[in-house]
This record gives sequence, structure tokens and C-alpha cells, in this order.
Amino acid sequence: MATQLIDLAQQTRAAAQKLGTLSLAQRNDALAKVAQALAANQAKIVAANQADCEAAQRDGIAPALYARLKLGESKLQGAIAGIHDVINLPDPVGHLQLHRELDQDLVLKRVTCPLGVLGIIFEARPEALIQITSLAIKSGNGVILKGGKEAIQSCTVLTEIIQTALQDTAVSPQAVTLLTTREEIKTLLSLDQYVDLIIPRGSNAFVQYVQQNTTIPVLGHADGVCHLYVDVAADLSKTIPIVVDAKTQYPAACNAVETLLIHEKIAPEFLPQIAAALTAKQVTLRGDAATQKIMPVQPATAEDWRTEYSDLVLAIKIVPDVEAAIAHINTYGSKHTDGIITEDAATAQIFLNEVKAAGVYHNCSTRFADGFRYGFGAEVGISTQTLPPRGPVGLEGLVTYKYHLVGNGQIAATYSGPDAKPFTHRDL
Amino acid sequence: MATQLIDLAQQTRAAAQKLGTLSLAQRNDALAKVAQALAANQAKIVAANQADCEAAQRDGIAPALYARLKLGESKLQGAIAGIHDVINLPDPVGHLQLHRELDQDLVLKRVTCPLGVLGIIFEARPEALIQITSLAIKSGNGVILKGGKEAIQSCTVLTEIIQTALQDTAVSPQAVTLLTTREEIKTLLSLDQYVDLIIPRGSNAFVQYVQQNTTIPVLGHADGVCHLYVDVAADLSKTIPIVVDAKTQYPAACNAVETLLIHEKIAPEFLPQIAAALTAKQVTLRGDAATQKIMPVQPATAEDWRTEYSDLVLAIKIVPDVEAAIAHINTYGSKHTDGIITEDAATAQIFLNEVKAAGVYHNCSTRFADGFRYGFGAEVGISTQTLPPRGPVGLEGLVTYKYHLVGNGQIAATYSGPDAKPFTHRDL
Repeated sequence: MATQLIDLAQQTRAAAQKLGTLSLAQRNDALAKVAQALAANQAKIVAANQADCEAAQRDGIAPALYARLKLGESKLQGAIAGIHDVINLPDPVGHLQLHRELDQDLVLKRVTCPLGVLGIIFEARPEALIQITSLAIKSGNGVILKGGKEAIQSCTVLTEIIQTALQDTAVSPQAVTLLTTREEIKTLLSLDQYVDLIIPRGSNAFVQYVQQNTTIPVLGHADGVCHLYVDVAADLSKTIPIVVDAKTQYPAACNAVETLLIHEKIAPEFLPQIAAALTAKQVTLRGDAATQKIMPVQPATAEDWRTEYSDLVLAIKIVPDVEAAIAHINTYGSKHTDGIITEDAATAQIFLNEVKAAGVYHNCSTRFADGFRYGFGAEVGISTQTLPPRGPVGLEGLVTYKYHLVGNGQIAATYSGPDAKPFTHRDL
Repeated sequence: MATQLIDLAQQTRAAAQKLGTLSLAQRNDALAKVAQALAANQAKIVAANQADCEAAQRDGIAPALYARLKLGESKLQGAIAGIHDVINLPDPVGHLQLHRELDQDLVLKRVTCPLGVLGIIFEARPEALIQITSLAIKSGNGVILKGGKEAIQSCTVLTEIIQTALQDTAVSPQAVTLLTTREEIKTLLSLDQYVDLIIPRGSNAFVQYVQQNTTIPVLGHADGVCHLYVDVAADLSKTIPIVVDAKTQYPAACNAVETLLIHEKIAPEFLPQIAAALTAKQVTLRGDAATQKIMPVQPATAEDWRTEYSDLVLAIKIVPDVEAAIAHINTYGSKHTDGIITEDAATAQIFLNEVKAAGVYHNCSTRFADGFRYGFGAEVGISTQTLPPRGPVGLEGLVTYKYHLVGNGQIAATYSGPDAKPFTHRDL
């Protein structure tokens, strides 16, 4: 099986190499034909998904997972509309990031180019296949897809339709490959010769597993332990709606808040107000010793500080100052998104400077951490690593760059030694 | 020992956090005081290095290594002058990469910021400590240094002088930490909680060891297997100087050429000419079967195609066309720097598009792949990975970015659901 997969990966890589040289018009034409084919085959797709859903129900699938697996007509139409949105995005390939004359007729360019082959591993949602495939084609990359086993019939039919549609385009059908067995994940993660980036979409535990079992770069994040710090100079009329939104607007989201840090001077006034607002929304509160002195709540431990509840639970800690809040966040946070609520600009600046997260917010909800809300037009994933790309990553996360140096016979010896000719280093 | 090192790393991290908030003037002032202190202590530094050199000679050090270890007055003065060059570089911190209104009074900024703590592991050359420390301070990062055991006295004295000099500056002396035992490398590589980037400087085997033994991102490259492809449409009067320069100007450099690919139609004319030019420079040639038919050379095997000789040896392969050259490079190359020599613009474009290297060159020597030659003012390393940063990396490789989102009480619910307020997404 490993050999078969290597053959597949090599084919995908070869197809990707050609795809990477196509014009924007050719890539967009392929996307339009894929959208058209999916629209023409809606009944077939819905039927395959129906078969997946029935099998999953026989296996006693959890309702939340079932909801994600289910691909009815309206979800499918949404996914097809999403392809047209991708067609309308600006081309991420061929951007000139640097253009510099090193000397006469010796010109350096830094140009964005596709990564090569993406390995996408996603759980139940079959429409993720449509979205990620269209982003891959748009950015000139081949893609090896691995969906959840529950969605196998949906994914197989979707891939067949996409591959058939690509036959009439400049994009080779082999640029899109589907893996169907769980065992193949391990092999996929070992193919650092053929796969340039892994994008896992699924539970924290799953992403962590991927991160720890591959030397291929991974775009994604395991935990989203986001914080809000309510400073002594917070305007409570803003604070309460922000905290309620950050916790309850979509508690399963990675950018929902998990721990609320409160300045000790404002806690006695603020805590009862926020507790009333949150419990009205069915949020369970857990608090440190100082919180418990003010209000009856379940005790919070160090384990709580590290936990992404993804649920209507909020941990609360009272801190003496902004520095203590920052220290807590930099110790227990996941570098996703952390915010301060304060009317004191100097304190806000300290927070924005010193918190080591990809997103540092002032006087707004953490729920804005999202590629669409940032105006990227698409979101490939959210990264919590320190190095770029981090935070919500749009199409630019699927390209890299190359240096082109074009000369007319120049050699390094001319620019070395005692009679070295100087470089002009003139930006063009 | 591991605990001690964790304590040290925590101290470095705390010092780095403050360093990361300093102004450019404060960081440059610290650099100026470091340069001053090193200049004032030249005799002490040279004496410590002399002791290292004598110990190394007693241990029978190789002459090339001895030359790298030796830090005489002129090399030291060069390193101190290098600090002033770093002072004059533009600030890599605080660049606004994106500035966008999401809605009225809700403004997103993407701003460059320091990585945090750099782990630098270098072999013999003690002046590397001076260079990398100044780049770290300039970019607002703390640094944990580990020099080669041969250079222990030099590195200890240099670090003491730097730390003492920093006492009179806004930069905490604890931002610069020196490790002195080889055992500490392994622990350092495991400190992913405290160290954000590892930069190894040394042999290929050493860099490979580092890459394979840490989950911390590594900036650097193991092999530099660079290629030149001489196309059928090459102008031989340009080709011969380029190949000679790429092979002989500094054969130990990572950007020196290791394999020469020659179009079969031009080989009979070109091979004897280039062989004469290279053997005049003491280059040993190895060739595939087709080369051997034209000229007596040592046979080259698949092992040669993967080898960075770092010496006056060149492997030669005859190929039927540019696609075969590209396939060879993408199979055996190290994605460092590969060039084509041709007067045919269309063929050159295919090569530039399809070769997967960080640097793709046309009609010039591979030896230009260097941060100073690119006009970056400094070179932190050369990366051969596919994802950015790749190629020669300047100071920008020592910073990352953060998203700042500053609002006035905005919540996500306002922009969701059927009555969603639209975002303005207006670049400022």
C-alpha cells in the first residue's frame, strides 16, 4: 500500500508541477468547470451522502457529527457558490515581492509561486473537500485529500466528479487525489519528498497527532485557549457584551474565550454583573480562590487554565495588574487570540506588545479572529505557531516564493576581492 | 543540568520580552555600547582566543578548523565594524504589513515583531557570536548561544564583555546567554516552550542532526547541491566563465555548483572546452556514460548526483532537453540555487517556473545566492525549505508578525446572521 501511495503522490506531484505553471485564466476556467459539474451532479452527490448518513446512523453517530456529515442540497449549493467566490479572489501566484537591480543587467525578483502538493486531512464535513480543492487549484497546487471514514461515499463521488470535470481543462485530473483508508494517513505524513504542506482539519487531539507524527510543515492549530483581560480601566458597558459574545456567540469555535482575567480592583463590581449576564446564557463559571471569595463558583485549577472547553464554560482568575495578566496568558495560552478591555491606551499598548499571541485585541471580541472577517476572502486555517504564517491564513498560506536572478553572464568573482565592482542594489 | 538550563532559558525569555518592547534607539544604543566594550577589551579577547588556539593545537586540530577558530586583531576589528553595519540597518520590528478598517473604529493591523528567543549553535568561529548577538539585539530577540568546544574561552570572554556592556543599557544582560557544554545542545533542542527558532551554523551533518532532533523551527540548510544546466541555445562565451566561477570561486560555499547538466546537442562542442577551463583550475571531473563517450572522466553514479562535494570536484550529466534537466534537479537537488544558461527566453522561463529551488538563475553564477549580494545588509542563514523564509534570509528572518485588532466595543454577533452588518474591509 505504501508503494501505491508513493506512486499516487508522484503522479500528483507531476500534475501539480504543470498546474503551477498555468495562467490565472486557465486555473479559473478549471474551477468554473468543476463548479458546473458539481451543480449538474447534485442528485448523485446528495444520494452518496445519504448513503454515508444512513451507514453512520446505523453505527450510532453522535448528532453533532451527523450534522457535519450531512450534505443536503442547500449546503452543497453553498459550497458551489464558494467556488465562484474563489474564482473571484485575486491571484496569489506571481506577486512580485521584491524587484532589485544588483548591477546593470543583473536583476533579482522575489516572486510568489505554488507550494507544490498539499496534504489535506479532514474529518466528517464533505463540503470541506470542495472548498479546499478549489483553493488548491486557485493557488496552483496539487492536493492529496483524506476525508473521514464516515464520508467515504460522499468524498469518492465528489472526487470523481471533480476529476472528470478537470479532463476538459488545462489542469490534469491527477492534480486531485483522494485517499480512502485510515491507514494511509500515516504513510501520507511520511511523504516529505512529495508533500509540501499538511493541513489537518478536525479535533484538537487529531491536529496534535498530525503535528507530532510528521516532519512536513503543518498549517493549523491544536488548542485555542483564548483570553480576555478586563483591566481596572475597563468600560463595563462595553465589557459585558464583549465577554458574552466571545464566550457564547459560537462556543465551539477556536476563537471563543476560555479564560477571563479580571483586575482585582474592578472584580467586586464587575464579577456579579458578568456572572448574571453569562449565567443567563447558560454559561457555567469556574473561578480561582479570589473569585470564590466574591461569588460562589466551581473552583478552577491549573488544568482549567490550559483547557479549551469548546463549550459554555468559562474559567475566571483575578489578577493584580496587566503584567500578571500577560504572564498568565504567555504561560497558559495557545498564542491564538487574546484581548484586553480598557480605556487606558498605555496599558493596552503594553498588552498588545507583550502578549505573544498571533492576535492581540483591544476592546473587541476574540471572535473576530477569522480569515473572512479579516477580509482575506478565504481561510485556509488558523495557525498558532510563532513563525509566519500565523493567525488566520488566507490563500497566501498556500504559496511560497522563489528568487529569480537573471543576468547576462555575470560571475561572482567580478564583485569580490580588492578590485571588487560594487553592487548597485537599486530597487526597481 | 536540564533544570539549570530551563532556568536560564526562562531568564532569557523574560529579558527578551522586555527587549522586544524597546525602541530602535534603545536597541542601537545597546549595540554601540557592545561594540565599544569589545574594542576596549581587544587584548583580553585575543588572549582568550590564543589560549583556545594553543589547546586546539595540542589536540591536533585540522588546519582549516584552526583558521576558523583563530580570532586575531584584524578579524576582531572586522566583527566590531560589523556591529556598526547592523546599527545602520533599517529596523525590522514594527513594520506595518497590513492596515485595514474592518468597520468604523474597528481597525486591523499586521505588525512585525520579534520572535522571542533564538537558539544559535555554531562551530569553531568565535566572531559568529558577535555577529549573531548583534543581529538578535537589533531584531529585539533574546539569544541562547552555544559555540564549539574549541572556542570555549573565546566565547566565555566575549559573552562576559557583552553582558557587562549591556548593564549600562536598556537591554538586560540576561538577554544574551552562553551555554558551554556539548550535552546542553540536546536539552536546548528540547526547549520548545522557551526557544522560538534554532539557527545551526556548521557542517551538513551537524545541521542535519539539529533538524532531526528538535520540534523547534530550524533556519538553515544541510546540503547545497546546486546545478547549472547548459542549454542547446547557450552562448558558450558566457557559459565557460559562469561555470568556472560557480565551481572554483569558493568551492566550499553552499552556493557553489556541484553538478553540471549539458544538453546533448551542445555537449560534443562544449565539453572539451569546459573540461580544459576547469582542469586548468584543478577541478576533477566525473561524468555519466554519455560524458565518458565524449571525454575520459571518472564515472559518476547516482551517489554523485546527491553529493555536495564542497571541493574542486564537478559531476557532469548529459540530458536530452530542458525537461530532463528540470527532472534531474527536482529529484537530486537540495532546493538551494540552480541556474540555466541559454539565449532562449522561452526555455529559460520553463526552467525558472518548474525548478523547485529557492533560487532559480538565468545566465549568471550560482555564487550570487547570498544575503549581502542580494542587498539585505545581513545574512542570518540560507534556507532550502519550501515554505518561507527561503533562500538567503536577512534580518526579516528574525521577526514574525502579530495581528492587532483595536475596536470600541465591537462584537461578532453584530456581523452575523440574517441582519448581519457588512464589514467595510477598507485598506488604510
